[in-house]
Amino acid sequence: MIIVMQTGVTSEQIEEVTERLQRRGLGVHLSVGEFKTIIGAIGDEKVVREMGLEALPFVERVLPITQPFKLVSREFQPENSLFTVGDCLIGGDEIVLMAGPCAVESEEQLLEAAEGVKAAGAQILRGGAYKPRSSPYSFQGLEEAGLQILARVREKTGMPIVTEVMDQHTVEMVAEYTDIIQVGARNMQNFCMLRELGKLSKPILLKRGLCATMEEWLMAAEYIVSGGNRQVILCERGIRTFETYTRNTLDLSAVPVMKRLTHLPVIVDPSHGTGSWRWVPAMSRASVAAGADGVMIEVHPQPEQALCDGAQSLTVEKFAALVCDLDRLAVVMGRRLKKQVS
Amino acid sequence: MIIVMQTGVTSEQIEEVTERLQRRGLGVHLSVGEFKTIIGAIGDEKVVREMGLEALPFVERVLPITQPFKLVSREFQPENSLFTVGDCLIGGDEIVLMAGPCAVESEEQLLEAAEGVKAAGAQILRGGAYKPRSSPYSFQGLEEAGLQILARVREKTGMPIVTEVMDQHTVEMVAEYTDIIQVGARNMQNFCMLRELGKLSKPILLKRGLCATMEEWLMAAEYIVSGGNRQVILCERGIRTFETYTRNTLDLSAVPVMKRLTHLPVIVDPSHGTGSWRWVPAMSRASVAAGADGVMIEVHPQPEQALCDGAQSLTVEKFAALVCDLDRLAVVMGRRLKKQVS
Amino acid sequence: MIIVMQTGVTSEQIEEVTERLQRRGLGVHLSVGEFKTIIGAIGDEKVVREMGLEALPFVERVLPITQPFKLVSREFQPENSLFTVGDCLIGGDEIVLMAGPCAVESEEQLLEAAEGVKAAGAQILRGGAYKPRSSPYSFQGLEEAGLQILARVREKTGMPIVTEVMDQHTVEMVAEYTDIIQVGARNMQNFCMLRELGKLSKPILLKRGLCATMEEWLMAAEYIVSGGNRQVILCERGIRTFETYTRNTLDLSAVPVMKRLTHLPVIVDPSHGTGSWRWVPAMSRASVAAGADGVMIEVHPQPEQALCDGAQSLTVEKFAALVCDLDRLAVVMGRRLKKQVS
Amino acid sequence: MIIVMQTGVTSEQIEEVTERLQRRGLGVHLSVGEFKTIIGAIGDEKVVREMGLEALPFVERVLPITQPFKLVSREFQPENSLFTVGDCLIGGDEIVLMAGPCAVESEEQLLEAAEGVKAAGAQILRGGAYKPRSSPYSFQGLEEAGLQILARVREKTGMPIVTEVMDQHTVEMVAEYTDIIQVGARNMQNFCMLRELGKLSKPILLKRGLCATMEEWLMAAEYIVSGGNRQVILCERGIRTFETYTRNTLDLSAVPVMKRLTHLPVIVDPSHGTGSWRWVPAMSRASVAAGADGVMIEVHPQPEQALCDGAQSLTVEKFAALVCDLDRLAVVMGRRLKKQVS
Repeated sequence: MIIVMQTGVTSEQIEEVTERLQRRGLGVHLSVGEFKTIIGAIGDEKVVREMGLEALPFVERVLPITQPFKLVSREFQPENSLFTVGDCLIGGDEIVLMAGPCAVESEEQLLEAAEGVKAAGAQILRGGAYKPRSSPYSFQGLEEAGLQILARVREKTGMPIVTEVMDQHTVEMVAEYTDIIQVGARNMQNFCMLRELGKLSKPILLKRGLCATMEEWLMAAEYIVSGGNRQVILCERGIRTFETYTRNTLDLSAVPVMKRLTHLPVIVDPSHGTGSWRWVPAMSRASVAAGADGVMIEVHPQPEQALCDGAQSLTVEKFAALVCDLDRLAVVMGRRLKKQVS
Repeated sequence: MIIVMQTGVTSEQIEEVTERLQRRGLGVHLSVGEFKTIIGAIGDEKVVREMGLEALPFVERVLPITQPFKLVSREFQPENSLFTVGDCLIGGDEIVLMAGPCAVESEEQLLEAAEGVKAAGAQILRGGAYKPRSSPYSFQGLEEAGLQILARVREKTGMPIVTEVMDQHTVEMVAEYTDIIQVGARNMQNFCMLRELGKLSKPILLKRGLCATMEEWLMAAEYIVSGGNRQVILCERGIRTFETYTRNTLDLSAVPVMKRLTHLPVIVDPSHGTGSWRWVPAMSRASVAAGADGVMIEVHPQPEQALCDGAQSLTVEKFAALVCDLDRLAVVMGRRLKKQVS
Repeated sequence: MIIVMQTGVTSEQIEEVTERLQRRGLGVHLSVGEFKTIIGAIGDEKVVREMGLEALPFVERVLPITQPFKLVSREFQPENSLFTVGDCLIGGDEIVLMAGPCAVESEEQLLEAAEGVKAAGAQILRGGAYKPRSSPYSFQGLEEAGLQILARVREKTGMPIVTEVMDQHTVEMVAEYTDIIQVGARNMQNFCMLRELGKLSKPILLKRGLCATMEEWLMAAEYIVSGGNRQVILCERGIRTFETYTRNTLDLSAVPVMKRLTHLPVIVDPSHGTGSWRWVPAMSRASVAAGADGVMIEVHPQPEQALCDGAQSLTVEKFAALVCDLDRLAVVMGRRLKKQVS
Repeated sequence: MIIVMQTGVTSEQIEEVTERLQRRGLGVHLSVGEFKTIIGAIGDEKVVREMGLEALPFVERVLPITQPFKLVSREFQPENSLFTVGDCLIGGDEIVLMAGPCAVESEEQLLEAAEGVKAAGAQILRGGAYKPRSSPYSFQGLEEAGLQILARVREKTGMPIVTEVMDQHTVEMVAEYTDIIQVGARNMQNFCMLRELGKLSKPILLKRGLCATMEEWLMAAEYIVSGGNRQVILCERGIRTFETYTRNTLDLSAVPVMKRLTHLPVIVDPSHGTGSWRWVPAMSRASVAAGADGVMIEVHPQPEQALCDGAQSLTVEKFAALVCDLDRLAVVMGRRLKKQVS
């Protein structure tokens, strides 16, 4: 940490900060410049963070130097984390395709979607049984009945599934049914739930919060990993900005940044990221070209009949066309799509 | 709802939309302009919202006309909601002052803070027993022991308390100890917890999410109120923007907007809203002048020793000076601070 | 400046940075921590800023320590800057009221507005002759004819005027007519024009850009002041955020922050800041309570006939009622409104 | 336009709005719903926009239905606009590469950069002679001497050039030297300058403003095109958000959205969009995969010696490696890079 003192600071004030740091076992490195005096605190930044030095009127700012995340950082583990889901290896050379409807509506709907996306080349089936909705009057998902449908469709198609958990309470139940547990954007900082997920040994797909910085996103992953569960997949899904033409602003720069900062796999959800089926193919291609380890795409047999987010769902046909593009892009990136063995 | 059709739409396509609307029991009002054809859907907008019409390639946009919130709206209840907490009436002419430390650290610390803010004129004591922290390595609060301290200090000082609940699990326990239950910004869309809170008959202080629109904030309140608990206090606490000089951007315009849209009381938290004790007095004064029904301010006996957010805490002395200002501003606003009877 | 080196940096790499700094005449202060090596560069930060050290792959970040602005800072000049406009003293104890229509439409309209706002207590008349409009098809202002109308109305009412200049070209002409030259939000970083304004000896009202940080805003002021014109008035007018209920998000925290960082006067424009007449009174009051040196408010005799921004204009009657509130708030703040001598 | 009336509106109030519309020659379409009365105004939306109806207290909102841009829209011209610059055709199947240093520093530097990027496959040379800098104390460019250097290097290498114009004043001079005139992000709404550029017959590269919506960006283009100059190239270069890890947030969704809304070519500047050379290759690839018509990349022979923005400049070697990737991606997209004939 660097403590920047106010202009005109006295030597007593410098000493007060110095002593506080030393009392907490930190080394001190003083640098008196022409205009500014700065104090370097050497040792554990966590300790300095909690000292509240900025409450002192002669302290101007406290600047962190090291990153607050540890276990998820590339510095801690230089090589990529790899997880196996069904017969997919996530985080390696293969780019994974997750696809399916926003919400599980019925077994027929889900099965039709699953068979369609599987035939087109998806490896993992997505579908929500619990739906976080901004209105209490909107369709909230089929809940446990939805989980049972997901399980039956997995059995019929052989596709592993990813589905969202909305609270700590249902973590255990959702974990019994699903292969990957999804944490939605609104729950990225539901710390109680993150702690619960840290106790599992199942992959967690952690969506970036709507206004989460990349650092906060990694800290949310750190909650899970520090609890003991090292299988975290990061999913960029758009942030909130002033632009209203798209539902969110898909921040694809997060892909290369995250690939450098962390060893965890990074995928992209262009469906929520843009909010309209029109922009999904272009942004899926861009995700692969930016280096994503996978994409998660909403596909619905009849988008205009969907109970939820039909506007951003691709038809099965459009999805199949997109997979062909992604396949060729993957090759240019020195990677490949996993081929389904039917 | 207004359905705006693509330029060049055919009469078959118009008919398709019309029929879909009619099948769902909605009235249809067609308006063919020189450039654009628009279809007005007359009836329950909730139905249209879930029809996914934007998935149709010849539909350009679907524009809502009515507000999605009902029970919390001024249209539904024109007169202000009033709640009693201890001997305070919130939402009426009196402006309520909530003050205390960010986190409960010990009985001594909380008692000293409570006695200080009470003497200065605060009516309600704040203090966190459960602390949502972006790092798993930061102090997370004393949890139930903190709640017990809060209860003892309430007994000693007679001040009602407000404290945060972080998950559905602990709602019941927190409700037993506290007078007002606070929902933090990161939990504003923790819908499972909101539903749980809707079953209580205790006031809920609902903080605005960091990137929540005013509409989403009201919808979160609607979750609680539609569950049966009508005692919701809205608390503006700053939104996330590009500006980094302040921790958040306190959106004071939310005060007059909310006072017009809803009958619920609206208070402001300038401590989290700005992130530094330096800006708290000015923004507290501005909150009262903007029409807030109260302010919630972090006060710590020794801010530079605080385990959490010392940088944004006022000392007891600074808080006392501020209360004098607020008292005089309240009078200009045709209101008053509640006088403590000691 | 603090140069944070990559983890794992070699001594050769440290030496390379050190040598580069020394070659540019800077002192070097090396601090080797457990995890991070940091290099303090002692001397002129401007030099370090332009060295492009972040282009070196072993440099992680370059952190500025001092503020980039000089002449406008409180450190450079601790006492408030005071400017005289007509018989108003701006930046002192008196709070200044600027009011008038968004655009000059005709002599009748402007005169009616001027007489109305003068009678209500405004000291300075605002009105645009050049209007920056996002559409080329919108009303663009009366241009020089508008300036002439402003001059005639000043003569008739004795009110000094403030009007906007849109480009370097017309600076001279606008300066001939007006008492205060306004730089609009979209031109805050029109650096060529700022340089031109730096050559004048007339007060400049510098609006904050829609997405300008407070630091960038001060740097824009520094452009003018470093050119020789020390009479700059800062005007907060709302920033762009995700919230759409208000046209912009009025960032009132900027008032106390600016009053601390700079000696220049700070006023607020709640009309553009909120975009609707409904929120202008509350936010005007909040501006005064936050410590603003003045407010600038759009007032139109018939807002619903206005050629521009009628939705955010107060009627003369509403403005007069507001002035009474502001007068009483000013007293609480230990200040006062200037009384018009009619 | 749709005029949404306040709940509880009277028939006199509806009539007042209706009459105002009819007086301006607009057709009226009334729709009385259960909760809301809405009035459709049929005719020119520009007229309604300027009527200030929102100033009436019984009008809740005025919603536009048609897009405010005309000449730049795909509806007006369905086929792509194509411009010739040197022997490049912009907007067609070929993807154009613009590269070079941020600022022209000397003839040696520019020539070295030009030869390097030309050999690597770039068609157009970029380099700034006028530099908009947030600090008045930073290097501001070589100005006319820089233009002369650009001209000499063009002669030696045969590469057409693109350089920025910063104000109306110098438009004519810059136009004499350059092949494409660049409008920087901070000048996107410098309307006086846009009008001046509308009179030329030279391609304009119009960067998106830091906080410009896509609609405002198109309206800025409309200023130029409506003036008579139809050769506008749109350039996405990142918007300002809360994320600080990257300098800006590159909004790649703007590429497919713009390709649908307008016939103008769309390119991307990932150098300014991300602010660090580390992320430029990934985001350049993503730009091509998203459907961009070109990319503009900062390349400097010695980035760590650059007078400006070295941190975001690629070396010539890194640029050459990137071009190979882009070449292969272009093929997947059914397009190609233009091959230099040396």
